[in-house]
Amino acid sequence: MNMLGTFCVRTCSGLMGLRTANLFRPLHSFPGITVAQIDEEVAKLLELKAQLGGDDGKHQFVLKTAKGTRDYNPKQMAIREKVFNTIIRSFKRHGAETIDTPVFELKETLTGKYGEDSKLIYDLKDQGGELLSLRYDLTVPFARYLAMNKITNIKRYHIAKVYRRDNPAMTRGRYREFYQCDFDIAGQYDAMIPDAECLKIVHEILSELDLGDFRIKVNDRRILDGMFAVCGVPDDKFRTICSTVDKLDKMAWEDVKKEMVNEKGLSEEAADQIGEYVSMQGGMDLAERLLQDQKMSQSKQACAGLSDIKLLFSYLQLFQVTDKVVFDLSLARGLDYYTGIIYEAVLTQAGVAPVSTETPQGAPAEESVSVGSVAGGGRYDGLVGMFDPKGRKVPCVGVSIGIERVFSIMEQKAEASAEKVRTTEVQVMVASAQKNLLEERLKLVTELWKAGIKAEVMYKKNPKLLSQLQHCEESGIPLVAILGEQELKDGVVKLRVVSTREEFDICRAGLLDEIRRRTSEA
Amino acid sequence: MNMLGTFCVRTCSGLMGLRTANLFRPLHSFPGITVAQIDEEVAKLLELKAQLGGDDGKHQFVLKTAKGTRDYNPKQMAIREKVFNTIIRSFKRHGAETIDTPVFELKETLTGKYGEDSKLIYDLKDQGGELLSLRYDLTVPFARYLAMNKITNIKRYHIAKVYRRDNPAMTRGRYREFYQCDFDIAGQYDAMIPDAECLKIVHEILSELDLGDFRIKVNDRRILDGMFAVCGVPDDKFRTICSTVDKLDKMAWEDVKKEMVNEKGLSEEAADQIGEYVSMQGGMDLAERLLQDQKMSQSKQACAGLSDIKLLFSYLQLFQVTDKVVFDLSLARGLDYYTGIIYEAVLTQAGVAPVSTETPQGAPAEESVSVGSVAGGGRYDGLVGMFDPKGRKVPCVGVSIGIERVFSIMEQKAEASAEKVRTTEVQVMVASAQKNLLEERLKLVTELWKAGIKAEVMYKKNPKLLSQLQHCEESGIPLVAILGEQELKDGVVKLRVVSTREEFDICRAGLLDEIRRRTSEA
Repeated sequence: MNMLGTFCVRTCSGLMGLRTANLFRPLHSFPGITVAQIDEEVAKLLELKAQLGGDDGKHQFVLKTAKGTRDYNPKQMAIREKVFNTIIRSFKRHGAETIDTPVFELKETLTGKYGEDSKLIYDLKDQGGELLSLRYDLTVPFARYLAMNKITNIKRYHIAKVYRRDNPAMTRGRYREFYQCDFDIAGQYDAMIPDAECLKIVHEILSELDLGDFRIKVNDRRILDGMFAVCGVPDDKFRTICSTVDKLDKMAWEDVKKEMVNEKGLSEEAADQIGEYVSMQGGMDLAERLLQDQKMSQSKQACAGLSDIKLLFSYLQLFQVTDKVVFDLSLARGLDYYTGIIYEAVLTQAGVAPVSTETPQGAPAEESVSVGSVAGGGRYDGLVGMFDPKGRKVPCVGVSIGIERVFSIMEQKAEASAEKVRTTEVQVMVASAQKNLLEERLKLVTELWKAGIKAEVMYKKNPKLLSQLQHCEESGIPLVAILGEQELKDGVVKLRVVSTREEFDICRAGLLDEIRRRTSEA
Repeated sequence: MNMLGTFCVRTCSGLMGLRTANLFRPLHSFPGITVAQIDEEVAKLLELKAQLGGDDGKHQFVLKTAKGTRDYNPKQMAIREKVFNTIIRSFKRHGAETIDTPVFELKETLTGKYGEDSKLIYDLKDQGGELLSLRYDLTVPFARYLAMNKITNIKRYHIAKVYRRDNPAMTRGRYREFYQCDFDIAGQYDAMIPDAECLKIVHEILSELDLGDFRIKVNDRRILDGMFAVCGVPDDKFRTICSTVDKLDKMAWEDVKKEMVNEKGLSEEAADQIGEYVSMQGGMDLAERLLQDQKMSQSKQACAGLSDIKLLFSYLQLFQVTDKVVFDLSLARGLDYYTGIIYEAVLTQAGVAPVSTETPQGAPAEESVSVGSVAGGGRYDGLVGMFDPKGRKVPCVGVSIGIERVFSIMEQKAEASAEKVRTTEVQVMVASAQKNLLEERLKLVTELWKAGIKAEVMYKKNPKLLSQLQHCEESGIPLVAILGEQELKDGVVKLRVVSTREEFDICRAGLLDEIRRRTSEA
């Protein structure tokens, strides 16, 4: 009671007093109050909140991970390791280096890079010092890194977690914390050669991961902008209409059109013209046809984009990947930073967690069983320049593999399969058949470790032989080295093959070689 | 002006009004104001702050990473990969699985686990929804994981970044974002066997990383508590005195004593008694001597700890690691959750970024060139029970490798060494000697990729041969496959060995084997 009274008076007099106070810091636009004074008032209020016991004292401890996040158990980690190895192998095959950046950036580093998605950025609490945000992707930190270190040429991959305050459908492998596997090529090069290599890499990775059939949709920001211009979209509506077109993979054309007309205020006529274009799909031939299109050819931008699509397809032919690549005018990745070619890979095989049964107007039937994007990227020639103090540009193109959905599919596969996923690589268990042999077990396992053999003992003085053998069966350990009084006397170890239950006496001196011989494949 | 006026009136009337308002939510302790109302006022103030342009409009974009964080460039990543591989190899050799947890946890998951260090936790901004914090270590999330999944037995490693709002000396390899490499054994086992294996692993890893000589200091929470009791420290001061003892690795005894007496209100006599004990170092013999110590032996707790230290050393002898392990009563790791044995590894070799020249009273001279902790850990038998709804305990012991300091040392070494660190694994560069051979280069590199060979082309239509060769020299690519009109006519490729500048014509059909043969070591 008393405290509250004091508090009220202090807060109010504090704020009221600002109007006439002698200010020691310059003000931005409102004379009479400084940010420091607001901060002080906020701190007082929050202190009171803490005294009130946080959220009205309704605290009951909940045992869970944060919304939209998950733990990975050892089985999931084993799958994850396999997937990462496949992806990294491809990145390295194409000569990429790797870098790492911090999980948070200065808030202003991320500001203005993501368009409408900026609201999904996680901010850190202001605990004094810099204002920080969790990274939303790996591309903006990469551009910051290039500008900061004045790097004009690099081919790098980066595998790390990114953060989005989305409301994801986690059953479909979408999370608020998720991995991205990015490959980017920065540098001033001849048109479409690095762009084509990015698509080649997507093709390689999706083929090697063996996830079933896929398509890589390709479009170009300049074609989209040109299309909007010739369809009569006002300049200042390009970005917002583009965001709406971007929803075509989840919404039917009718709903997209409604949003354009009713929410974004586009004329019905313009919307219908857009609708015609965004139903088009093809290859190099479609690019050629559109270069002749009466309306489209009026846009210089569109023509530049279309010529590049043609060039791209000629390189894709040499890379032998045109079987999966489609030029698709409905593709409109929403991020603000793209300037040229954009692409997105989707799995098309039926039966794996379909995302939507609605089809955009004119889309081929197979699209209806799309399980959504598993990779995406594009060219962003302006992003590094946004960070460079002198605005120097470093052209970039890159691709991001959306790995969480891949994990989900692999997990489903592993569960459906009879084969057991091993979570350790232990080659041999050092066991004893009788009591009081802990010291002997520890001595032997030390010898094995020293020789680089992966080995375990049970952490019991006198474990039962049966429980030692059971542990091997459960975790897939192929061999057991069994010590007993007799074996010790004879200078041998009884080596048991878990799968066949065969046992052999091996002389101590030959044990290392025997274990290596029998587990050289594992 | 106008806005500010409105704001002031609204805020003040809002808060004043609370005293008589008809409240719709129950209050915790202060009738007259709810947390929801405070939240509302805070939101209004923050909105005004935003309108004022953040920090009084002094915005100038700064191109940097957040304080206490850093990027890793490709060279650093190559070193990091090597270090991680060494560590993971050891963890796997000892049969560990791996798990992963999210980078943030519910704030309350971390609350009350870190003692005085809790102030270093990064909180996320309250953007609606759950209150979240960045993980401070990997141990608490591990305990949460065990309780949540009702796991009673696991041996796992976890390598990931953790976050502390410290004021680190980054020149010494300390950061606000840094990697931890944790290995933990959870389960009800016979005393000191898993504990000894943790020390064995530290010994293995530090030996294999080849960082110079090291010591592993060992102590026990129960010995510390028993020591405090027999020295006359009041029960409620154990934790805070323990934190002060923990500073002995950075502060001289005299300063530690001053803090105990002047700041923490301990009697001078008690402090002096503590001073005598914390100067003691030894092995199994010291544990035996202290078991006979008139004062120490009065504490049951201390005796239990001392007996376990004896048992531990007997296992360490079997593991052949006693050469580096010291029982050191000054070791007092500050985290609240330790319940039994604790340990810390320090590098002792002179010349590598010494941390401090002050020595605690009685410490041996070599400690004076300690470069600080590179690993630490201990037993925490109560932590999982803090998360389990029924308080079920899962005894745990583990170790954390503080890898950032290791990276720093390895980097210094790499810079001092003449050998160049390669950042890619490219085996061959596909080059051309004449113009207009881009298509041929793309075709050949596609063949190489298909065969799993790591290969590059320059992204230029007509690159100069010299610049192609220079790129190979710079990035350590061992071979160049050179195409020219003549080679294409003859069905051969000119293979150039970069180091010797030798050139051979290889028939196209034999190229893959020739490249593999010449790079099988790389």
